[in-house]
Amino acid sequence: MILEHAILEVSPEQVGEFEHALGLALSLIRATPGFIRLEVRPAVDRKGRYLLLVQWQRLEDHTIGFRQSDRYRQWSALLHRFYKPFPEVTYFGDPLVQVEETHFMPATTR
Amino acid sequence: MILEHAILEVSPEQVGEFEHALGLALSLIRATPGFIRLEVRPAVDRKGRYLLLVQWQRLEDHTIGFRQSDRYRQWSALLHRFYKPFPEVTYFGDPLVQVEETHFMPATTR
Repeated sequence: MILEHAILEVSPEQVGEFEHALGLALSLIRATPGFIRLEVRPAVDRKGRYLLLVQWQRLEDHTIGFRQSDRYRQWSALLHRFYKPFPEVTYFGDPLVQVEETHFMPATTR
Repeated sequence: MILEHAILEVSPEQVGEFEHALGLALSLIRATPGFIRLEVRPAVDRKGRYLLLVQWQRLEDHTIGFRQSDRYRQWSALLHRFYKPFPEVTYFGDPLVQVEETHFMPATTR
């Protein structure tokens, strides 16, 4: 699995409009083969900053399957105007380590 | 809940040593009240870059409970020498939206 990561920076005055557009855009990414899970979290101390995390089965599900689709053109039209600057996307692999409150789970995938 | 977020940058030559030290350090953070979950993921295309995500019950569980503890001094002694530059920590709140492959779940916590 692949985790797509981006920090989104939106003008504080446009937060309401952005969050509405995001709600409209979600079905576009969700319909993409290889999509597993998306979450968007607001920063605690900076209005307009968000963490976007998307899990994909394979890197190409995002870079080719989504980004070269018509759904991505619609996604971009809805969302890209809000980003200043345009976010850098980074891809991370399966966890090297995972620890939970009462369990220790060394990753078995490496 | 709070998600602590940092991008860790380690020299590619020190990756093995860092990953070993990380394994030793995990029990220190796990023992902290309010700790829920930690994961560290390696970047796909850049050796030595990692995504650190830690879930805490409250912000203060990290900023006070962990950072002002003796366990944090041990954690720092094990890990901080690997980071160049020293990572910026950002805190994110509960998800604004979450979408999974076959389910749509608007966050209920806002």
